[in-house]
Parts: sequence; structure tokens; C-alpha cells
Amino acid sequence: MEDRFRVGMVWSMEQRISLITLGVADVGKSRRFYEKLGWKASSASEEAVVFFQLGGMALGLYGRDALAEDAKLPPGGSGFGGITLAYNVRQRQDVDRILEEAQQAGGKLLKPAQDVFWGGYSGYFADPDGHPWEVAWNPGFALGEDGSLTLPA
Amino acid sequence: MEDRFRVGMVWSMEQRISLITLGVADVGKSRRFYEKLGWKASSASEEAVVFFQLGGMALGLYGRDALAEDAKLPPGGSGFGGITLAYNVRQRQDVDRILEEAQQAGGKLLKPAQDVFWGGYSGYFADPDGHPWEVAWNPGFALGEDGSLTLPA
Repeated sequence: MEDRFRVGMVWSMEQRISLITLGVADVGKSRRFYEKLGWKASSASEEAVVFFQLGGMALGLYGRDALAEDAKLPPGGSGFGGITLAYNVRQRQDVDRILEEAQQAGGKLLKPAQDVFWGGYSGYFADPDGHPWEVAWNPGFALGEDGSLTLPA
Repeated sequence: MEDRFRVGMVWSMEQRISLITLGVADVGKSRRFYEKLGWKASSASEEAVVFFQLGGMALGLYGRDALAEDAKLPPGGSGFGGITLAYNVRQRQDVDRILEEAQQAGGKLLKPAQDVFWGGYSGYFADPDGHPWEVAWNPGFALGEDGSLTLPA
């Protein structure tokens, strides 16, 4: 029998993520929302699934029931999904502009931008399926030229 | 009155994401799960919030109710949250190894690895709060040396 806790086991899950997939009610509608924000879908996209390149990872849009089925989970669910996404900006005033753009593209404002206890400024919008996005100015987390975020060392 | 659809409006939301935050029941327990997979938390982590650097973005762990409150959403929710995360591997056999490691670290197997219709091989595990992670070998999506994923051009 294999030891459950092997001595010297080399864990091999690198510290990274490849894709986030959002389960959506209407893939076309959701695609148009992100395209209205100026995003370009990958050529790998099809009618039933859409991909956006985000730095070294990707965002997928896929039918909610199909996504649950793929994970062998019951498709039912309601209320807060327990995950938020965040888009950090370079300047404080960008938070308001991005929240405005998201609403013009069909998103819903969840929380107007405000000063927050950790020293930044942030608000939230929801995409057409209610997936919550924070838009934040966080002077403690550096953003590179390419938009990559670097946590304190 | 401002035109809702401004001519020549420059959309400014770059195609990227800064953070994914998982709402969790017990931040310490969830931190230990990801640390057992070999991940190192950033020095920006505190008792109530933990951050892991993932390429040019970060994963956060934060109390589920506090996360809902931050987004001004009711904290209640049940069933499928509507989002999955994915970790792509370089070789088909790595899928089984990562799923095994995730279970040894305290995760729950949702779907054993199997051949999938899009030509790859994948399975799912759930982290301690049920957040579903796909572990996938997808020969169509290139993985770089640093683990970054590149969609077809």
C-alpha cells in the first residue's frame, strides 16, 4: 500500500492558473458584453465557448449548465457564487471611468467607487450573469507596463 | 445630458485580470490546503486575507461573508457558483498526478481524469470550500516554460 504521506514527495502543482471559466446563460450575449469593453476573442472561440487571452492565462465563457456538467456538479445554484474577479488600475480616477464603461456596456453597478480600509479606492460591477468584478486602485500592489500585477516580495 | 453612446469613445479596460478572490469558510484552513500543494503565500498575507502570486496576477483567499459584503452582495448562496478555475499541464499523465496530489492535500475528487470531446484529458477536484478546479491536458493551448498559456492566434 502506498504511504499516504510519502517522504520526500515532490509536489508538482506549479503556482499558476491557466483559465477562469464563467458559466453564463447566453454565450453570445456575454461575449458581446466583454467585446463592448474592447476585448478581442481568440480564434479558438466557437458558438458555444469563447476565450479571451488575459496575459499568461485565459478567460472562458461557457454555458452555465454545460460547465456544471463538465465538473460533474449539479447545475443548480443561487445567490453569491463565492468568487470575485478584480481588475486593478494605475490611477485612482480610472476606477470611476472603468465602472462607467462597464455600465455602458451593459453591466450593473454593485458598489460605487469608494475609499476602502486597506488604503485604496474601489467599486464593483456585475457582468450580465452577475459575476462580480472589483475595479480597484491599490497603491500597494505594483502594476507593470503590460498590466501584470506583482505582490509585495 | 451625456450621450449614452459617445462617438469615438475610447474604451480603457485593458484585456487582463489582476486578482481572483475565493470566498472561504476558514482562511487558515484554505491557506494550508494551497500551501500543501507547494504554493507560497505572499508577505502581503495577513490572518484574514492571503495572497498567492500566480504569474502576472494573484489569487486571494478571504472570508466568504466578508467578500460578499465587500461587493455589497447578500452573503447567502448555495449550489454551483458558476465559475471554474483550470490548471493546464504539459503532459497527459500529469493530470492524474495533480488530481492525486490535490486529494492528498485535502481536496475532493469531483471527476476522475478522462478523455474529453475537445481532444484533451481532464478531471476536476474541489478545494476545501468546494471551488472547482479542472486539471487539464489540452494539446491545443500552448504552455510556455513559465507556465503561461497562449491561445491560438
